[in-house]
Amino acid sequence: MNFSAINFKDKFSKFSEHWSPRVVAEMNDYQFKLVKVEGEFVWHDHPDTDEVFIVLDGILNIEFREGVVTLNPGEMFVIPKGVEHRPVAESECKIMIVEPKGVVNTGDSESELTAENDVWV
Amino acid sequence: MNFSAINFKDKFSKFSEHWSPRVVAEMNDYQFKLVKVEGEFVWHDHPDTDEVFIVLDGILNIEFREGVVTLNPGEMFVIPKGVEHRPVAESECKIMIVEPKGVVNTGDSESELTAENDVWV
Repeated sequence: MNFSAINFKDKFSKFSEHWSPRVVAEMNDYQFKLVKVEGEFVWHDHPDTDEVFIVLDGILNIEFREGVVTLNPGEMFVIPKGVEHRPVAESECKIMIVEPKGVVNTGDSESELTAENDVWV
Repeated sequence: MNFSAINFKDKFSKFSEHWSPRVVAEMNDYQFKLVKVEGEFVWHDHPDTDEVFIVLDGILNIEFREGVVTLNPGEMFVIPKGVEHRPVAESECKIMIVEPKGVVNTGDSESELTAENDVWV
């Protein structure tokens, strides 16, 4: 067993790409992913699972077809499965995502922003 | 749909009891719980599930039979299922726990620290 803490700041220092989730931990069949985001993502949904966003640094807007949620550091939101959403960040924002292993970042909306899955940092 | 962010500081302001997890969100069949801890918890394990600890404020030691992990704010650790552990905090520490709905805080080691389950804040 490895008795080292997972330090978010340390992990974020090891990559710079936006919209490219890096797995830092696995709990049962769920993964904890760190992501740097900036600009507008694509509209998409995840038909089979809820998805958790936690903002660690910066400000994230999550747009929905019928509203928007603004997340500051120390805030989280659960996106219900099947609900279309689009994350948008005016400036670089550091977030943690929690979702089942295997979930693709763009859901069913494959695009140039679709990231390789299961990349650890 | 409720478009309000879940703010950890706001949620922590609403309770003061130690070792008494409060659910703030549900994702599929998992729950996100905030806990204020101070002092020594009981040795226990969760035979059926991993458990995630994320420290938001303060310092948490998680003791194992063969080692210890120290978590500062912005750090997390995954306790593998079935592994005995004992959280200890010299001063009050604010943490988030992620685990399947229904997991009891003291696992199989019922004690005076066993908290009521599924209490929301």
